[in-house]
Amino acid sequence: MDTSKTLRLIALSASVMSLSAPLYAFANTATQNPASSTWTGTLPIAAHGPFQRVYMPQNAPSAANRDGFPREWTSAYANARHNAAFPVGNDAPKWLRQGVGWNFAEARAWPLSDKIPFGNGVYGEREALPVQTQFMGNALGVTAVDGTIYGESDDMFAYAVNARTGQLIWRTSPVQNNLMGDPVVAGRSVYLSAGSVSFNFAHVVKYAQTGKTSRGEDESFNGVISLNRNTGKFQWMFLTKGEAMPTPAYAHGKLYVSTGAGNIFAINAKDGKKIWKTHVGGIANMSDPAVYDGRVYVSMSVVPYIYCLNAKTGKVLWKQGIKGAVNTGLGDVAPAVANGIVVQDTVVDKRVKNGHKTVNTTVQAMSAKTGKILWSHNMGRGPLPPAFKGGMPMIHGGVVYVGTPVNSVYQARNLKTGKLLWTWSVPDAGPAGAGRGAATYYDGALYVSTGPYVYALNSVTGTELGKHYVGGRFGIVNPTIVGGTIYLGNSWDWINALPVDAVNPHYKG
Amino acid sequence: MDTSKTLRLIALSASVMSLSAPLYAFANTATQNPASSTWTGTLPIAAHGPFQRVYMPQNAPSAANRDGFPREWTSAYANARHNAAFPVGNDAPKWLRQGVGWNFAEARAWPLSDKIPFGNGVYGEREALPVQTQFMGNALGVTAVDGTIYGESDDMFAYAVNARTGQLIWRTSPVQNNLMGDPVVAGRSVYLSAGSVSFNFAHVVKYAQTGKTSRGEDESFNGVISLNRNTGKFQWMFLTKGEAMPTPAYAHGKLYVSTGAGNIFAINAKDGKKIWKTHVGGIANMSDPAVYDGRVYVSMSVVPYIYCLNAKTGKVLWKQGIKGAVNTGLGDVAPAVANGIVVQDTVVDKRVKNGHKTVNTTVQAMSAKTGKILWSHNMGRGPLPPAFKGGMPMIHGGVVYVGTPVNSVYQARNLKTGKLLWTWSVPDAGPAGAGRGAATYYDGALYVSTGPYVYALNSVTGTELGKHYVGGRFGIVNPTIVGGTIYLGNSWDWINALPVDAVNPHYKG
Repeated sequence: MDTSKTLRLIALSASVMSLSAPLYAFANTATQNPASSTWTGTLPIAAHGPFQRVYMPQNAPSAANRDGFPREWTSAYANARHNAAFPVGNDAPKWLRQGVGWNFAEARAWPLSDKIPFGNGVYGEREALPVQTQFMGNALGVTAVDGTIYGESDDMFAYAVNARTGQLIWRTSPVQNNLMGDPVVAGRSVYLSAGSVSFNFAHVVKYAQTGKTSRGEDESFNGVISLNRNTGKFQWMFLTKGEAMPTPAYAHGKLYVSTGAGNIFAINAKDGKKIWKTHVGGIANMSDPAVYDGRVYVSMSVVPYIYCLNAKTGKVLWKQGIKGAVNTGLGDVAPAVANGIVVQDTVVDKRVKNGHKTVNTTVQAMSAKTGKILWSHNMGRGPLPPAFKGGMPMIHGGVVYVGTPVNSVYQARNLKTGKLLWTWSVPDAGPAGAGRGAATYYDGALYVSTGPYVYALNSVTGTELGKHYVGGRFGIVNPTIVGGTIYLGNSWDWINALPVDAVNPHYKG
Repeated sequence: MDTSKTLRLIALSASVMSLSAPLYAFANTATQNPASSTWTGTLPIAAHGPFQRVYMPQNAPSAANRDGFPREWTSAYANARHNAAFPVGNDAPKWLRQGVGWNFAEARAWPLSDKIPFGNGVYGEREALPVQTQFMGNALGVTAVDGTIYGESDDMFAYAVNARTGQLIWRTSPVQNNLMGDPVVAGRSVYLSAGSVSFNFAHVVKYAQTGKTSRGEDESFNGVISLNRNTGKFQWMFLTKGEAMPTPAYAHGKLYVSTGAGNIFAINAKDGKKIWKTHVGGIANMSDPAVYDGRVYVSMSVVPYIYCLNAKTGKVLWKQGIKGAVNTGLGDVAPAVANGIVVQDTVVDKRVKNGHKTVNTTVQAMSAKTGKILWSHNMGRGPLPPAFKGGMPMIHGGVVYVGTPVNSVYQARNLKTGKLLWTWSVPDAGPAGAGRGAATYYDGALYVSTGPYVYALNSVTGTELGKHYVGGRFGIVNPTIVGGTIYLGNSWDWINALPVDAVNPHYKG
């Protein structure tokens, strides 16, 4: 009550002063609000509340169970090629070679046995499917490092789970926002990216007036979050104005991240301090930056370009478009880079006939050095998919593998020439289309997670070798394979582990 | 694995069939997707997970501590007048007469001692303040029924807390969405409304093309949720396409709700079944419907009108606009109704000068029967406020009290004539403006919660009688007063209780 009296006196004098001051003053928001800042203080989490971190050290993997796994995870889908495949030696423990199977229920887990998503009755399955991915489940695949599986979920939690047992090591929810990335692990830290697909009304109006807008700004708190990888303990958050949905890419102590406000940042992975910022415009959706040979490759929507930046300075070295790209298509898809070639796809050439919208998908290869287009091919026409509209390309052995939910196919093409090697149609594509996730090349076969299934294909012919019904749905999910196990993130809010030979009967571990 | 083989055979036959079928088929979304449906099944919540309901029956109020409280709560701010004031008799228990003080930390509680909101560094205080309200804290005030305080929070949880002790009775988070309402209590149920301020990119594009759009559709799962009021146990959810941010109004066994898809629904409060739906267009923001004399009053944005509907049939009896209304202004504000008069305000007449946007606020009284405008006055020009732009009007004793964050004032006007009785300027308005919440008339004084303070004013003159620093910020929050206690919802994610005499030294309990 004493405080109240003191403050009343201050308020009184302020009120007297205001007689001579103007009735209102304008804040110069342009200079007051930077596009980013690093936060190391308290997070808005109640002690003993549901969002408080849970840490169960007894579930951490033993030293023996860490071996054979990658030691770090530098980008979505493990690397710039997007091939998350890690064979183990014959001397590896038996469980690691033969594989394990478990399903870990995350906070908003929806029964895997349910055939339809929550909200199906009002949205229809076609819309409810992506909504469940975008707001309740795992948008991307999972990370496998040192015997631990790390997952991010749109239930707002990140999880660390024992890769062998499926038991929870830690769980944390630093901010009230969706976590749409594939956790990056480097040094002693794990990095998350916070941001949602949402706009506010000011951005709706701005787009109508200018054709440009910003995603995620004033839509909760966005950015890159650093945690202790063993305990999940918060270290810092690099707060950004626009959403930071894409997974950052790590290289040489730096993290590269693109945002819904059209910015690309390099930040110090140790302390979260900004190193450089380049404003390229447009909005980032799910296009994770790729780092290759000292350069950063990143694609943006609305002003649809793929950019190549100098990783040290942030200077734009080249930009390139894809002819006929449809609004969010280019910024949805993360470029894959290998052998001096960048591969990017996007939905193109939107047509409306009798109220039905159709698009095609263009996959394009460019010189990583100059951006020069090497080849460009269409994948076929189909209905405009809801939400994420492209397929994450993957490169292995001079071949690019890429899917699309437009007509629910995967294709293999020669990386250099673009020559079509085969086309595979997803058998149970479902109303939202299938083919968004990156494929994984592993031990002579190609693995694909789409719809409720994981498939194994002959990588040379595209013939189906086998499949396994997991249930739920896979969003933009790649199979992460270590030894004999496939690890997955599920839109029904699960982390799944299953033996490779449950999918591919020909697999000999 | 057996399941997998069976499904493979089914898939094979489907794949053979598809040779003669077209490459893709269009779903007729118009007929497949209704605008609503009632759900009574499983919710996407993991057993033993953070979102699982917590129930502590030992903290429920004793029979003696329930007396003196309202027995039901039929709309936001308690009633169509918006005056949440409940005096108790001299025979009431001492604690109830003298009042209690406590602060209950919700799941994303941010220290009340912090002067600035989370994210201030990147958004600036002006923007971070409403973002904290909209995504982490309590947007509206709280409900007081039978010795229990019910609160909804944008941390996605609803809470029931013992009114005397501040102890948790139950906590639940039925869906992954913001809960922006003031819980409605009727019979044995408590009703929540789920929905956020967000749009997706399809709606951004639609607005640019047509000037119309839908809020909340495909932005998680929206609607009205029914829980057992004693235990928090889920009973049903009336799922809607657009957000259901507004608090429903209850009357005679029906709930009335407006949505971001431009629909107004009457639903059966017992089982959540739809009784009628009227599509009026536009989008609902925070305009809670009011029921008065067999009619429903509700305001919408974008196509900005106030509508009067027959409560039994949903037939629109009249609609009325406010001259110069700015996009979301009208749908932000809930109409107050008393003495045959509807009062509504909105921001109007937007001007841009040297990049600075200013607006005025119009408060307008209409005949509840015909919609005829009785009077209309401007409250003064100021900078366009971020987020919620109006003030919730409150009517008591033939006087309407209304604030606005545009120039951060409260005014009292004669309900019938519109004559200005007084203007009070909020002393510490802050960069986002103050004056959004409904005032409460109680025992001769007016109580206002805005900024970090609760104020008491002389209701006849508008002179400040006292104030109390609570900390955090109050969003669109009214003081809910029962006996000697003021109960509040806080943007810093707290429920606050404080004695009336901590605010008003003249109060004699």
